[in-house]
Amino acid sequence: MRVPKVPGDFDTIELRGLLDGRWGEVRQRVREVLDAEQLPPGDGLDTESHRARTFEQLGKLAGSEITALGFPASHGGGGDRGGSVVSMEMLAGNLSLMVKAGVQWGLFGGAVTALGTERHHDRYLRSIMDLSLPGCFAMTETGHGSDVQRLGTTATYDPETGEFVVHTPDESARKDYIGNAARDGRMAVVFAQLRTPDAEGSAEGHGVHALLVPIRDEDGAPVPGVDISDCGRKAGLNGVDNGRIVFDRVRVPREALLNRYGDVSADGTYTSPIDGVNKRFFTMLGTLITGRVSVAGTAGVATKLALEIALRYGDVRRQFENPSTGVETPVLDYRGHQRKLLPALATSCALHFAQEELVSTLHELHTNPDSDPDGRAQRELESRAAGLKAVTTWHATRTVQACREACGGAGYLEENQLSTLKADTDVFTTFEGDNTVLLQLVAKGLLTNYRDRFDELGTLGMARYVADQFVGTVVERTAARSLIQRLVDAAPNRDEEDVLFDRGWQLRMFEERERHVLDGLTRRMRRAGSGDADPFEVFNDAQDHVLRAARVHIDRVVLEAFVAGIDRCADPASAGVLERLCDLYVLSNIEDDRAWFLEHERISASRAKSVTEAVNALCARLRPHAVELVEAFGVPRQWLTAPIATGEQPGTR
Amino acid sequence: MRVPKVPGDFDTIELRGLLDGRWGEVRQRVREVLDAEQLPPGDGLDTESHRARTFEQLGKLAGSEITALGFPASHGGGGDRGGSVVSMEMLAGNLSLMVKAGVQWGLFGGAVTALGTERHHDRYLRSIMDLSLPGCFAMTETGHGSDVQRLGTTATYDPETGEFVVHTPDESARKDYIGNAARDGRMAVVFAQLRTPDAEGSAEGHGVHALLVPIRDEDGAPVPGVDISDCGRKAGLNGVDNGRIVFDRVRVPREALLNRYGDVSADGTYTSPIDGVNKRFFTMLGTLITGRVSVAGTAGVATKLALEIALRYGDVRRQFENPSTGVETPVLDYRGHQRKLLPALATSCALHFAQEELVSTLHELHTNPDSDPDGRAQRELESRAAGLKAVTTWHATRTVQACREACGGAGYLEENQLSTLKADTDVFTTFEGDNTVLLQLVAKGLLTNYRDRFDELGTLGMARYVADQFVGTVVERTAARSLIQRLVDAAPNRDEEDVLFDRGWQLRMFEERERHVLDGLTRRMRRAGSGDADPFEVFNDAQDHVLRAARVHIDRVVLEAFVAGIDRCADPASAGVLERLCDLYVLSNIEDDRAWFLEHERISASRAKSVTEAVNALCARLRPHAVELVEAFGVPRQWLTAPIATGEQPGTR
Repeated sequence: MRVPKVPGDFDTIELRGLLDGRWGEVRQRVREVLDAEQLPPGDGLDTESHRARTFEQLGKLAGSEITALGFPASHGGGGDRGGSVVSMEMLAGNLSLMVKAGVQWGLFGGAVTALGTERHHDRYLRSIMDLSLPGCFAMTETGHGSDVQRLGTTATYDPETGEFVVHTPDESARKDYIGNAARDGRMAVVFAQLRTPDAEGSAEGHGVHALLVPIRDEDGAPVPGVDISDCGRKAGLNGVDNGRIVFDRVRVPREALLNRYGDVSADGTYTSPIDGVNKRFFTMLGTLITGRVSVAGTAGVATKLALEIALRYGDVRRQFENPSTGVETPVLDYRGHQRKLLPALATSCALHFAQEELVSTLHELHTNPDSDPDGRAQRELESRAAGLKAVTTWHATRTVQACREACGGAGYLEENQLSTLKADTDVFTTFEGDNTVLLQLVAKGLLTNYRDRFDELGTLGMARYVADQFVGTVVERTAARSLIQRLVDAAPNRDEEDVLFDRGWQLRMFEERERHVLDGLTRRMRRAGSGDADPFEVFNDAQDHVLRAARVHIDRVVLEAFVAGIDRCADPASAGVLERLCDLYVLSNIEDDRAWFLEHERISASRAKSVTEAVNALCARLRPHAVELVEAFGVPRQWLTAPIATGEQPGTR
Repeated sequence: MRVPKVPGDFDTIELRGLLDGRWGEVRQRVREVLDAEQLPPGDGLDTESHRARTFEQLGKLAGSEITALGFPASHGGGGDRGGSVVSMEMLAGNLSLMVKAGVQWGLFGGAVTALGTERHHDRYLRSIMDLSLPGCFAMTETGHGSDVQRLGTTATYDPETGEFVVHTPDESARKDYIGNAARDGRMAVVFAQLRTPDAEGSAEGHGVHALLVPIRDEDGAPVPGVDISDCGRKAGLNGVDNGRIVFDRVRVPREALLNRYGDVSADGTYTSPIDGVNKRFFTMLGTLITGRVSVAGTAGVATKLALEIALRYGDVRRQFENPSTGVETPVLDYRGHQRKLLPALATSCALHFAQEELVSTLHELHTNPDSDPDGRAQRELESRAAGLKAVTTWHATRTVQACREACGGAGYLEENQLSTLKADTDVFTTFEGDNTVLLQLVAKGLLTNYRDRFDELGTLGMARYVADQFVGTVVERTAARSLIQRLVDAAPNRDEEDVLFDRGWQLRMFEERERHVLDGLTRRMRRAGSGDADPFEVFNDAQDHVLRAARVHIDRVVLEAFVAGIDRCADPASAGVLERLCDLYVLSNIEDDRAWFLEHERISASRAKSVTEAVNALCARLRPHAVELVEAFGVPRQWLTAPIATGEQPGTR
């Protein structure tokens, strides 16, 4: 097997410039700000001290450009949606701080911006930005986390007083896991079933809407009717004060309704620019997509930091003597160790380019919404955001775990950061959308070809909908369409061994896998929809298939983003090393999934074995450059404190 | 596909009796003791309070039968090695306590018992048992964790004074991660390179030996020459005080040497009943195997507890309405959720039987060492213990993680136990032997057919050794040889679909896989050994193959133990439900590894797809019984406190 070489002379700074991408200047500024401003994570602190420190650190960020970037320029913000996501994710070395910042400025501030109107912006945005109004985003309830359309909290309009009555009807409708609730929040954006009185005097429902509800007074005491309790200690993120909120007929003025997508007049008449409860609800959710994109970005940076720690330690930690040389062997020289870390490094690089593309699309659509009159681009963006969030956070969970194990006992000590990174990122796979539910959303988007997804997120939904409205699967290219097409067209059809390293062949493999899985799923759904099968059974029987469809779709999107990223690279040495990382990403992905390729006769048994050989060979080729490569991501130096990574650990110098 | 039914009428108590096995009475007594004695884990406590509480709890266990079972009857112990392992593992709901107990009575007490002689037993065992002498097991050093034969600490005999001088020559030779060191330990079993003066007056080395070295005085202050520092906060197990110890020419009397396998006379003459430094060292290590067996057992119980929490919650937590019924669906009804948890439940059951068999073998050999004159059974036991420890602890890491994710946000809260179980068990994959290194040990045993493994653990070792001494691979049956042979012989050769559920066919698949992998590896090693290839390169190129050989060997051993366990079951309904769990264990294992079966033409593509169908169907069949099944393991009720599992969580009643 002729394995392509890695150019030995690539320049880390050059490579970093490429990886930094469109928001390179923002990244560089944030690095400088962060390295000047010490913001240590709360390792070893008790919960109360950790929360106090995190809130204090939040105060330091409050005035900074990092946190204002995402707010409208009209109200003192930077008006830079993409830059905002990129700068927030760089807080990943102190994840309590990042999440707390995300709650205050991303979720709370973002909801007021996106769902509110001028009256809310004028009144609240500046105090949200400067942290004089700490707030919560109160959506999830104990009984409804994924199925948020069925929230139990109610907001009933009372025309007598011109107020909404916000109420928790039963204990499973209490707001739960709400960040900023247990200690600091003064106000909450509360998601509730909006009701107005109908002609007969009973309540008419308009679906879930958001209202601003004060939850604490100036002294920090809960206001009357609001009962707040503490979720207590968590696996990680203990600098964030998650709590539970129960409302007992709390009255707020009519103006508290965030009324961009639905309003109630003084006499109780409901109006909305969007017809249909489902469409309205999903439009509102769609405006809040930035949070999900941020989680993916942050998971990505946390993973890079973990990899940097494990690779630096593996590069110098020695174990067992090589008898030919009499010298003990650095553990990263062992193939088993390389396989734990290097394919993960390659995947991190692939996801990095996909995230850059996603942020860019988010930014464009936000800056110029008129470019998408039929909402198709927005729906595609939502689907990509959901899928990348799922894939990136699962990658984080797996990789941080592998890094911990790769560092042995040292990896278990808090001083070496991996335990904190593991515990803090662990919830990423289930918050801001449970990954399994998110992948179902992606699959549905694919099946309905993005035509219309204003339908229930639920299970049934899916089967019935697909059967009714199916319009055919199309594998649509992402970035750099013509480049990708050219590569695919040029790929050899013959079974030469070196085809493994041909980018066109690789792209074709991912594309054909996606098409095949999706076609099969479509046929299955259509068949089921035409009979009188129970929709739940149909959906449930196919759930594996649904999740796989989403997964392989995202894999293809990620690969295309990687290929497009390499194409943007003007420096041949940097491009050369990225080409090898791309090979490793593709081939380790195919290796993991080779059962599918074999079952569907896309590769022969001997080809499958040579994929494994190729992965091994690429690991060996990349090993000498591993530390430089992970450095090129430019995680802020403030975050690298582990003695095993800084040379302070005995025996690592 | 005709999927065999699960008998609906099995009895949980009956099943528990079977699972409890040989030490059923011990298990039942420990359950009663534990449920009377409240020993809550240290959730939410700061490090110092957690350590103090754990030490106090250790005191409560000190008088009890649980901790005395493993000590010699001659010195007030129970003389029940198997019972001791089984009762210790039942502490798994408070893992800091279990590990602290394991350090005191398993590692420290176990080393004094196994490596010491009468003088040490008489002087120390009672005070070790009653905790008046808290101790440490000081083997690992910062620079040498896996390769413990190359420890740097020295113990040099000084005939002038009749003392050993224990010394840390450089900072990478400091003792590290030592349990009981940072706070409570008064004495340590210190592993060091033993040296005596030779004829010319310079030092002659005899390899690693263990000595008893006081580290703290009566008041708890470090003794002169002993520098103790604290490893600080860890991912979990913060009730255990891990520390670092540096010795500056500390003098201990000649009698401090644990001299069962090597002694030094007053004039400095070294004698040992075992010739050869390697053989001596590995004999000593072999006597300490109980710790490794205990870790596997404890990981097993912790995994069962995690599964019980996740299955109870999944059974009642509802999300998304089924439109046909208008009722929200319990999440465990979703196939995706079943697949996260039920194959793991089946694997836990399989590992349970394998662990029972291992403990039984350990007990027999310990009780009657003369039954093994050539040491072959001991070597096989060591290999099994290493392999099962690796497989069981990785299963724990994966499964506890899956349980956490399956419980969403609730799984992230400390009150629901999963975060603590995750953090506490996380180190199990790398302590008491790094799993990767352990699997290499297993593979080496297989290649050399257990003939002789008194060789370096290292890498080189392996390649050279195998090439020299290879005697041919033999897949040796474990328990119930004749039963297994009968089943294999009776298996149909033809490709009928229902063959998937034929136990003989399943056994044959596992056996053929093992034989094929092992034969290939042997050929590879032999080929390499005959040329002039660099031994390190040879070994390193084959490392994947080596790890896989160990893995599939252990899978087969586990399956045979499961089959033998079912065969012992007199109750048809219990046997019936275990048969289905065994099917799920086998078929999910084959599904995960189906790429190998396809690559090696052991199954066709359509057979591979039907394996997936069978796994799905078995999940659906077992789902209604999931909670009863996990209850049958009989994890002590004291440990089940999660509100999501006890019905205290709103919406779960």
